[in-house]
Amino acid sequence: MRRRPDLSLVLVTDRTLAAGRSLEDVVRAAVRGGVTAVQLREKDCSTRQFLEIGRSVQEACRSLGVPFIVNDRADLALVLKADGIHIGQDDLPPRDARRLLGPDAVIGLSVETLEQALAAEAEDVDYLGISPIFATPTKPDTRGEWDLAGLSKLRRLTRRDLVAIGGINPENAGAVIEAGADGIAVVSAICAAADPERAARDLRKAVDGARTRGSR
Amino acid sequence: MRRRPDLSLVLVTDRTLAAGRSLEDVVRAAVRGGVTAVQLREKDCSTRQFLEIGRSVQEACRSLGVPFIVNDRADLALVLKADGIHIGQDDLPPRDARRLLGPDAVIGLSVETLEQALAAEAEDVDYLGISPIFATPTKPDTRGEWDLAGLSKLRRLTRRDLVAIGGINPENAGAVIEAGADGIAVVSAICAAADPERAARDLRKAVDGARTRGSR
Repeated sequence: MRRRPDLSLVLVTDRTLAAGRSLEDVVRAAVRGGVTAVQLREKDCSTRQFLEIGRSVQEACRSLGVPFIVNDRADLALVLKADGIHIGQDDLPPRDARRLLGPDAVIGLSVETLEQALAAEAEDVDYLGISPIFATPTKPDTRGEWDLAGLSKLRRLTRRDLVAIGGINPENAGAVIEAGADGIAVVSAICAAADPERAARDLRKAVDGARTRGSR
Repeated sequence: MRRRPDLSLVLVTDRTLAAGRSLEDVVRAAVRGGVTAVQLREKDCSTRQFLEIGRSVQEACRSLGVPFIVNDRADLALVLKADGIHIGQDDLPPRDARRLLGPDAVIGLSVETLEQALAAEAEDVDYLGISPIFATPTKPDTRGEWDLAGLSKLRRLTRRDLVAIGGINPENAGAVIEAGADGIAVVSAICAAADPERAARDLRKAVDGARTRGSR
């Protein structure tokens, strides 16, 4: 994996939202719609079950040519031959993740405050997850949202790739890109959508549209 | 670490039972009393917190010369330079654990049924955790207890090192060894004891006494 993957539209998985569809099917539809990377984040399952789900999603990602990133656990990222890992502030420290996964792995780090984002300048990570950009029920345990103003401020202070997550939909995605995000990540906007392919297409259109406007 | 460590008396940690004492202090006292190996099993804490606790316990174990084993997570075992890992039936498969940790790591596998124990004959693991040997509130999610009769039966069928866990105390520890266990593992019998050193000494005496009787 190249170390600077296309993170324009990241799908973060949640099988409990997939409503009877297999997660692999949701992933395939989402990538057809324009998702550029997939992060496997499945809670409330055993390691064995995570690996089983992970294998099918990893194979889907490989066949579709998009990076496959595992949340939190470096051991499972290694077993699943993932392209990288996404870690939070209370997870494995970035330097340990890098040591375990090697120089080619994509490492993303969630930051919930400006202070955390600036501390991450010293770390060998490939992108920052701006979390949450908007208030969202999916991650209730965070320290308040960044909002567009906070993202703009951070954008002026760092050259890091920034991927915003939390409460993003086709209506506000463009504004997030215009405020300085390099990409967006979504959970329910795709996983819970009746038509994940179309949901991804709408989000991707908003991202691409904002970029076109920004480059004029 | 040699692949056949002394598992006569394994302390499995639970900081929530340590009642204000540091886990490291409990571990040091327990090893003074006769504990021969320590497995770090801490639930309900973040990865970062697990690593912090793990570092102090790992250093204590190294300075005291007893093996330090991490429960479940191979990535944390690697970061903590543990001597091995203990996995359950729903954790990382043994072959993946071996691949990640290498040939010198001690790998233990919990088995809850005779069927699981016999299936493990094909795996490259160093010991089986016979779990639970007796009914216990610490692990309520198991398939019923082995009891001494089940352990004796398994003993006749395998040459594996067998470490029994669950409801063991100084009164029944000798019978567990006589039924065929190579060692015992305890959580609350040491972690919750008013005097962990003395608790360990009493357990160790029971184990050693049963062996002496067995070799007559």
